[in-house]
Amino acid sequence: MDTELIQFHTGSETEAVDITGEVAGFVAGKGDGIVQVFCPHATAGVALIETGAGSDADLLDIIDHVLPPDFAYRHRHGSPGHGADHVLPAFIAPSITIPVIDGRMQLGTWQSVVFVDPNRDNPNRTIRLSFLRA
Amino acid sequence: MDTELIQFHTGSETEAVDITGEVAGFVAGKGDGIVQVFCPHATAGVALIETGAGSDADLLDIIDHVLPPDFAYRHRHGSPGHGADHVLPAFIAPSITIPVIDGRMQLGTWQSVVFVDPNRDNPNRTIRLSFLRA
Amino acid sequence: MDTELIQFHTGSETEAVDITGEVAGFVAGKGDGIVQVFCPHATAGVALIETGAGSDADLLDIIDHVLPPDFAYRHRHGSPGHGADHVLPAFIAPSITIPVIDGRMQLGTWQSVVFVDPNRDNPNRTIRLSFLRA
Repeated sequence: MDTELIQFHTGSETEAVDITGEVAGFVAGKGDGIVQVFCPHATAGVALIETGAGSDADLLDIIDHVLPPDFAYRHRHGSPGHGADHVLPAFIAPSITIPVIDGRMQLGTWQSVVFVDPNRDNPNRTIRLSFLRA
Repeated sequence: MDTELIQFHTGSETEAVDITGEVAGFVAGKGDGIVQVFCPHATAGVALIETGAGSDADLLDIIDHVLPPDFAYRHRHGSPGHGADHVLPAFIAPSITIPVIDGRMQLGTWQSVVFVDPNRDNPNRTIRLSFLRA
Repeated sequence: MDTELIQFHTGSETEAVDITGEVAGFVAGKGDGIVQVFCPHATAGVALIETGAGSDADLLDIIDHVLPPDFAYRHRHGSPGHGADHVLPAFIAPSITIPVIDGRMQLGTWQSVVFVDPNRDNPNRTIRLSFLRA
């Protein structure tokens, strides 16, 4: 399979990292098919949202509203709120597929591929990109 | 790739549009594989839920509960609550794959493919359907 | 298509059932590609989360927080809270794809495949596993 691990570094705060460029680079020249963006972490997800107009920061805020850090989680090791990080991937899944035509993702004008990482304790992150040719 | 854009019109209210028939028509006669339903919009998602028994309307109501329109969003252009529309695709993703055998989606009895569109400001909507043969 | 239905039994309580072993068994020996885990039910989802350290139980609790059983659902047949079960698949989708290399899922260390079943009224459950070779 045409597949690749991409390593990157996130900071000590919760982050929504735009990885559209990395995925676009991976599919360039590969023809038609689907690209799967897969995150092999138990405390992160992948989303397709607009970036650069406030919604990426809004997403981090609303995550804290939807999955409150101070909820009575059983899973409690690490930083405060780490229990919430561990249920996040059920709601923002770590796997998404995007159509590709002639080596270009068929995203809408305002869609970006975003790595959603609420976890402050692990700044070393990986994404696996895989291409299935049609 | 066997792929097609389907255009449709949503109204001026939030909507959960059943597009099962459109997807079924697209895969008919195509054999075995998976169909990817992809929405190239930054304010909509795709869900597999029961329709016609209240749950489609329930979904629109619970979206307003989970992602409150009056939350302090940074992204504020357009109608009230538009900030919420922009975080929705992180929770209800705009991409889903469904297994297809002998040209028929292998949905459960009560599953329908639903285009979830909270955005009142853009009634012109598109779905991209793509088929990957097994 | 290389596809298979797996039947299993869930109990009379809400459950997060670890099905990693079943999926691993299905892809073993199949080479490179993606496996699609698809749930043909309107009241269940599939998630990739850590199990065995509390987060699976946390997930069931937080689902009741995010999608309250006592919300004013139109869909009301069955057990109390069944209306919530029917909107769950919009947030925890019943379909996910996982990369496979040399017959092994490329999950992260802490990721398990979990069948999320809040429905107490239907203990007979099915998952469809499908493999797309790269």
